[in-house]
Amino acid sequence: MANTPLVGIIMGSDSDLPIMQAAADMLTHFNVPFELTVVSAHRTPLRMVDYAKTAKDRGLKVIIAGAGGAAHLPGMVASITTLPVIGVPIKSSNSIDGWDSVLSILQMPNGIPVATVALNAAKNAGILAATILGSFDAELSEALQAYKNQLNDEVLIKVDKLKTTWPNSFDK
Amino acid sequence: MANTPLVGIIMGSDSDLPIMQAAADMLTHFNVPFELTVVSAHRTPLRMVDYAKTAKDRGLKVIIAGAGGAAHLPGMVASITTLPVIGVPIKSSNSIDGWDSVLSILQMPNGIPVATVALNAAKNAGILAATILGSFDAELSEALQAYKNQLNDEVLIKVDKLKTTWPNSFDK
Amino acid sequence: MANTPLVGIIMGSDSDLPIMQAAADMLTHFNVPFELTVVSAHRTPLRMVDYAKTAKDRGLKVIIAGAGGAAHLPGMVASITTLPVIGVPIKSSNSIDGWDSVLSILQMPNGIPVATVALNAAKNAGILAATILGSFDAELSEALQAYKNQLNDEVLIKVDKLKTTWPNSFDK
Amino acid sequence: MANTPLVGIIMGSDSDLPIMQAAADMLTHFNVPFELTVVSAHRTPLRMVDYAKTAKDRGLKVIIAGAGGAAHLPGMVASITTLPVIGVPIKSSNSIDGWDSVLSILQMPNGIPVATVALNAAKNAGILAATILGSFDAELSEALQAYKNQLNDEVLIKVDKLKTTWPNSFDK
Amino acid sequence: MANTPLVGIIMGSDSDLPIMQAAADMLTHFNVPFELTVVSAHRTPLRMVDYAKTAKDRGLKVIIAGAGGAAHLPGMVASITTLPVIGVPIKSSNSIDGWDSVLSILQMPNGIPVATVALNAAKNAGILAATILGSFDAELSEALQAYKNQLNDEVLIKVDKLKTTWPNSFDK
Amino acid sequence: MANTPLVGIIMGSDSDLPIMQAAADMLTHFNVPFELTVVSAHRTPLRMVDYAKTAKDRGLKVIIAGAGGAAHLPGMVASITTLPVIGVPIKSSNSIDGWDSVLSILQMPNGIPVATVALNAAKNAGILAATILGSFDAELSEALQAYKNQLNDEVLIKVDKLKTTWPNSFDK
Amino acid sequence: MANTPLVGIIMGSDSDLPIMQAAADMLTHFNVPFELTVVSAHRTPLRMVDYAKTAKDRGLKVIIAGAGGAAHLPGMVASITTLPVIGVPIKSSNSIDGWDSVLSILQMPNGIPVATVALNAAKNAGILAATILGSFDAELSEALQAYKNQLNDEVLIKVDKLKTTWPNSFDK
Amino acid sequence: MANTPLVGIIMGSDSDLPIMQAAADMLTHFNVPFELTVVSAHRTPLRMVDYAKTAKDRGLKVIIAGAGGAAHLPGMVASITTLPVIGVPIKSSNSIDGWDSVLSILQMPNGIPVATVALNAAKNAGILAATILGSFDAELSEALQAYKNQLNDEVLIKVDKLKTTWPNSFDK
Repeated sequence: MANTPLVGIIMGSDSDLPIMQAAADMLTHFNVPFELTVVSAHRTPLRMVDYAKTAKDRGLKVIIAGAGGAAHLPGMVASITTLPVIGVPIKSSNSIDGWDSVLSILQMPNGIPVATVALNAAKNAGILAATILGSFDAELSEALQAYKNQLNDEVLIKVDKLKTTWPNSFDK
Repeated sequence: MANTPLVGIIMGSDSDLPIMQAAADMLTHFNVPFELTVVSAHRTPLRMVDYAKTAKDRGLKVIIAGAGGAAHLPGMVASITTLPVIGVPIKSSNSIDGWDSVLSILQMPNGIPVATVALNAAKNAGILAATILGSFDAELSEALQAYKNQLNDEVLIKVDKLKTTWPNSFDK
Repeated sequence: MANTPLVGIIMGSDSDLPIMQAAADMLTHFNVPFELTVVSAHRTPLRMVDYAKTAKDRGLKVIIAGAGGAAHLPGMVASITTLPVIGVPIKSSNSIDGWDSVLSILQMPNGIPVATVALNAAKNAGILAATILGSFDAELSEALQAYKNQLNDEVLIKVDKLKTTWPNSFDK
Repeated sequence: MANTPLVGIIMGSDSDLPIMQAAADMLTHFNVPFELTVVSAHRTPLRMVDYAKTAKDRGLKVIIAGAGGAAHLPGMVASITTLPVIGVPIKSSNSIDGWDSVLSILQMPNGIPVATVALNAAKNAGILAATILGSFDAELSEALQAYKNQLNDEVLIKVDKLKTTWPNSFDK
Repeated sequence: MANTPLVGIIMGSDSDLPIMQAAADMLTHFNVPFELTVVSAHRTPLRMVDYAKTAKDRGLKVIIAGAGGAAHLPGMVASITTLPVIGVPIKSSNSIDGWDSVLSILQMPNGIPVATVALNAAKNAGILAATILGSFDAELSEALQAYKNQLNDEVLIKVDKLKTTWPNSFDK
Repeated sequence: MANTPLVGIIMGSDSDLPIMQAAADMLTHFNVPFELTVVSAHRTPLRMVDYAKTAKDRGLKVIIAGAGGAAHLPGMVASITTLPVIGVPIKSSNSIDGWDSVLSILQMPNGIPVATVALNAAKNAGILAATILGSFDAELSEALQAYKNQLNDEVLIKVDKLKTTWPNSFDK
Repeated sequence: MANTPLVGIIMGSDSDLPIMQAAADMLTHFNVPFELTVVSAHRTPLRMVDYAKTAKDRGLKVIIAGAGGAAHLPGMVASITTLPVIGVPIKSSNSIDGWDSVLSILQMPNGIPVATVALNAAKNAGILAATILGSFDAELSEALQAYKNQLNDEVLIKVDKLKTTWPNSFDK
Repeated sequence: MANTPLVGIIMGSDSDLPIMQAAADMLTHFNVPFELTVVSAHRTPLRMVDYAKTAKDRGLKVIIAGAGGAAHLPGMVASITTLPVIGVPIKSSNSIDGWDSVLSILQMPNGIPVATVALNAAKNAGILAATILGSFDAELSEALQAYKNQLNDEVLIKVDKLKTTWPNSFDK
């Protein structure tokens, strides 16, 4: 896979970085080249327009956008680019239990979808970007299957550990 | 008061017009010149940017923006202009009981406020715009006081009607 | 584009078809070959497992899964396949205002994302599937841009109509 | 009562064990033989299918399944087995105040019930399993009545203690 | 199976009968003898106490209790009897979207579980009662499996019908 | 009981009368003299202050106040009078499913309680006013007991009717 | 005022005492004799019935009942006694943000009201009980007015303090 | 700009000051003269009436009112004055996750708008007051634009910092 970024990770504030880092980590895990920066819909609206306008021509295939509260970044970027946009609702300090973040990203009007993941689920945003790329990249697809297998195997290890305390008739 | 529009009423879709009309009606009532058009954050993002950028120079003093679902129009306009922006959450057909509309307009991040009114309360948006202008316009301020008096008097007329059925010891 | 289905549209019940039809319509609009069938997580769990297991080998690139209430279909399919899965929360008759549908699709655990769209937003699921394919298909990408332009133009036509009633100083 | 497990306690992750332990404790209290293991709907979907398929033939009479977030384990197991399935919604770290866990377990479609208990109420899941078995086991039924009596008596002891501070005219 | 009622269906008001009828219908389908009556926690509290106190001795194995609003019937009955109690939250006319009904049945304190089913899901309450009995009744267990098979087959018939409109590569 | 009104029923708008009428009906049933009028916290704030200030001296013992949306009437009246104020949250047309009405009446700060009843439950407000008066009026107390007995008896009549369709082993 | 308790304070568990103490404190402040004990709807249902049945004859005029989660105590007591019952929703450890406590106390069916106060607002329950008694006790009524005056005066002291930092043109 | 206060900041309790301070800080930043005091709708209702009645004549142009729980202060002030009132919902200790504060300020009835900002967003209330004044004050308007530029520039500084860790193809 080339070194040109295929995924753009953006977030409304650098205070979102501790959450959004997980998206970067998963893309690193899958050897997917990516870029990461801050783009604020509300504080840098014109930068946001430029980012979205140029994303496709700069070689991006997927955009991951995280934001909290009245979270407009994912939806506004999706309104400008034809790339798939993955939205990560962030439970920021000014959020009402995360509901505002979720609803203002998820409930986009007809015509302009945002692929929303769970609250704070930047890790899943990274995996989702990889699955999108993996549909067109056999090697990445295999890595995704390996990741699934690993999740499965990690459970089985825990199953074995639990057996020492709780004997279990189910041996699969 | 001059004929140049002082208030701009915008909405995300002409399907919002039956709700937003009430804002226009109140401004008409108060003789406040206004303009009204459709500006969609998601379908016409660049038009939205232009609208917001030019609003102040075109003479507007207040912007009223109505939108539903993941409602980004009021907040995005507020991110670009220094004018006060009044947001009207609309309970559109794709809304989850109006919560998405309310939260995605109300819960703006620090630095970029939107003056949010109640769900579907375009009438109150019109009145709020008038109160803002009325703080700097004695004639309008008097009209606002007259409107308050009228609300009060309408209640008193109903009070009198109710007395025919329910005699009442409270005579004020 | 080939005739082999690239997108699989599945739903938990044929009663979801009036909603899910919109996904099919958008894929038809974009000339994206797709298949559509009923796969119930709860009534045909083994069929669901088989569907998900074979999806990639049958040539699918994206799966769109709609379900309502305790909506397990999108998440369970995502747990088995490495393809991107788009979840459509449906406000079915037994749903509590759609919240159950939304949360049981959106809030997937770390490791298994579902690309969730708005409540009942099958149309957006179709468009999202097209954007995913469009990242790797120049012709489709152009069609998506044309669709965006059309959304923009439809607004401008309405803007012109509104001018006959409300003259407007903003001429863009 | 035989030593073959009559109740199967499963959970989506070993991180749920601190909560789910209470179900095991209650079954231990009532001398109900049980098994306990991790079965993840999303990370080990095929293990889940096997667990559910074999549960009845392995002698289980009731299954207790705990999960959080988009909690699919109880409902998916219920879709495969004819045994009663008790669902424990867990307020896991990625949950939105527990609402997702509750709704994605409770709101099962017609045909496939899950006996849902309160958020994090694994203790009640253990007691509920015992009441189910107790309907067909006189000794266990007596133990359940004794447990109810004990709950009652514990309150009365506290009532007496409070009397030293707050004299009380109600002496029952 | 004997003619003595094994399941008691109670509801807070006869206005709940159109919903609760579905529980009776499922028990009739499974040849499970049952009784059905109105027992109001709030209007007939002493009748409720008597009903719950005598339920076990009258031969009942399971109680299904439906109620709406501040729904206390299922929990209060569960506080008195050692039988398993299935609670059906009903979206009655005075309910706030069903949330009150759900929460006041589901969120029982430690020690006194109620097996809660989905909002208005009396049908599932009937099936759940049957699965509880079926754990100790081979014939009923087979009937439950047959019911599951029927649910599966009904989906397959719809799958075939859809094929005439939407050809499908998935032939299972 | 004297003819001087003992209960004052007020509401924010005459559009609330169809709901609030039920409070008047219950007081009529219990022969409790009352007055009824419109007092709007927002449209007639000074009338509201006067009403609350004079209520006690005019002989009222209890005030019932109904309002919807951002419902300030019950709490504001309670802030001025020392009489008990019963608040009736009304699901008015501009309410968000009644949540605003409920929370803005119920969640009063320390020092100024409002006795809140269920959404739209003006009937219960009337009964609650009667129970307050009945604590100091033996005749009214007996009428309240008779009302409870009547509620109980009405259930028993329905129980008998249901027996013709559903024979029932429980004969109390 | 006599020493016989006029108010009964009950709570579902002694773990509710830290919250419910505030009701006792307010009644002590107003010299209202009261009793306080634990009565659990779910763990001591027959004690609850007895408590409610005898309350009036034991001289109580008002009952304050606090409970959390699926909080049935206030409503069940109200179903048995003709005394006014004040319900205090408690945000107990197993509560979903307090919503369950609030709704299962507030949303009582027609015929059986509970005078509900704010979440955890035992202090207001004590004051409300005093206002009920105060409607029939001139001395207590004066004490309530004095308490209101004190609340007012405490604010004015803070107003004065704030003036040292923020000079203020409003001198009342 | 003159030294007469143009903005009045009021709050229901001095415990709200740590939140409301941010409004004062922003007005200080913009050199807008303001006054700040405590006005409690519930503990000092008559002071509130006086404050609102005299606000305009004392020279105020905008009022900022913060309150929590059943927050009546902003709406009641708005019912009396013709000035624009900005409401700040405060998540006070007795609030249910802030929902009560938000809804009882936002959901004002037709005729009496409150310009509501986000939960705890006193900073935005200060900025909103400045934008209202800025529409009629060129110097303030420029300061607002400078503030927007500063927000933008602060993001760009963070963008540069992030580049050291994550090289980025987007150079604007």
